[in-house]
Amino acid sequence: MRASNAGIEFAPDGQVIVGPEFRALEAAWIEGVAAMARAGARVIVDEVFLGGTESQKRWLKALGDLRVLWVGVRCDSAIAAGREVARGDRVIGMAADQAEAVHRGIVYDLEVDTTRTESLECARAIAAQAG
Amino acid sequence: MRASNAGIEFAPDGQVIVGPEFRALEAAWIEGVAAMARAGARVIVDEVFLGGTESQKRWLKALGDLRVLWVGVRCDSAIAAGREVARGDRVIGMAADQAEAVHRGIVYDLEVDTTRTESLECARAIAAQAG
Amino acid sequence: MRASNAGIEFAPDGQVIVGPEFRALEAAWIEGVAAMARAGARVIVDEVFLGGTESQKRWLKALGDLRVLWVGVRCDSAIAAGREVARGDRVIGMAADQAEAVHRGIVYDLEVDTTRTESLECARAIAAQAG
Amino acid sequence: MRASNAGIEFAPDGQVIVGPEFRALEAAWIEGVAAMARAGARVIVDEVFLGGTESQKRWLKALGDLRVLWVGVRCDSAIAAGREVARGDRVIGMAADQAEAVHRGIVYDLEVDTTRTESLECARAIAAQAG
Repeated sequence: MRASNAGIEFAPDGQVIVGPEFRALEAAWIEGVAAMARAGARVIVDEVFLGGTESQKRWLKALGDLRVLWVGVRCDSAIAAGREVARGDRVIGMAADQAEAVHRGIVYDLEVDTTRTESLECARAIAAQAG
Repeated sequence: MRASNAGIEFAPDGQVIVGPEFRALEAAWIEGVAAMARAGARVIVDEVFLGGTESQKRWLKALGDLRVLWVGVRCDSAIAAGREVARGDRVIGMAADQAEAVHRGIVYDLEVDTTRTESLECARAIAAQAG
Repeated sequence: MRASNAGIEFAPDGQVIVGPEFRALEAAWIEGVAAMARAGARVIVDEVFLGGTESQKRWLKALGDLRVLWVGVRCDSAIAAGREVARGDRVIGMAADQAEAVHRGIVYDLEVDTTRTESLECARAIAAQAG
Repeated sequence: MRASNAGIEFAPDGQVIVGPEFRALEAAWIEGVAAMARAGARVIVDEVFLGGTESQKRWLKALGDLRVLWVGVRCDSAIAAGREVARGDRVIGMAADQAEAVHRGIVYDLEVDTTRTESLECARAIAAQAG
């Protein structure tokens, strides 16, 4: 995927550029995950939407009438950028770039905010809804 | 999966015991991988067959008429046991237990043997056939 | 170290038991780290004191007149226990067991509290003092 | 170390360039490891000598009269290059570049060759000598 610019590229400033080969593989991936859920597996997908409404539509279409809980995991942009630095292994700039952008145009059933809420508390809120 | 004995259990002697919950999830997994391949993705599955013919049949049924290259990756039992020790993070006994057993009743299109052949040479032989 | 009970043992309830072999190796480790600092390296040691004053004394003795900044990194016990669960790869019980205990009898130059302060902010407070 | 060219740099062709800051830290590291051994710890150092006789001399000087078993771990250059590819996470070219070079001018008590000998067999030969 990274050997050709038809695949995926991570720019030094944290931008992510994807080409047609990535899209084709992504579509196959989504189909497969939907098939797993349809076959009875309970699946958690951790996804980052860089294309707004269009990105979510790709999943909605493949998931059809499967029961889905859409959870938005938010974090204040400055705090996310600080955590990116603290992790020590990230492309700096990606967190600030994405903190707001990934939620634009996305519709959720539930939102949690990790800015000041512990991961476990967020997980509990999600588990309560996932029933 | 490991919290209940209906899931999967790794015995201290390297034996692996699986229950009904594991089987259900495995079936969903196989369905999903087949769906990915059907949607155009080229997929490599690295599988260890502990149930012989029955294990392979589960995949054959789900894969249907997809083009598949079945590759057997063999290794002499004593050598495999030595590599298991050298890795330092394995349940000792699993390699010897499985070296022969995982191939019993399985039908391959191609077999490679890592006992005395380098990984890269094995990979090249497989790539040549995968075309 | 874990093959003999003269070494180190992690009990299922999160307790840590160390024997004479561990102590001997620990002493050699401390000597070596002190020698590195004495030779000019700037070293960060991330240590968990399970033996209070005695534990700190082992280091104080070996470090002699080296310039050291002692930093206590605290976290509320309940919050630490939650993060332990969220990490998913820890022996549950260790965090609650240690949150208070590791600070008993230890003297610091500076203390930070990660309960409600971001890692990067804590790091900045430490860097400011480390000059 | 990688933020300045006084530290260490990995060229795209597998070459490694080190500067004065790296040398100073390396010296402190060697001092510390020697101090650990002197304090009674049995230490295994896995080192790659890029500077021939000079590189080994740095260690010899610091180790003084400590009992040391010098082991050369060899691998045919072409085989090493193939394993580098198979690992998937290495800078390609480093193995071929170093396979011969790292042994030039180095004096060993024992040599093992992983080209056609299993790791465990090599380990056993070393353990037998380390007594």
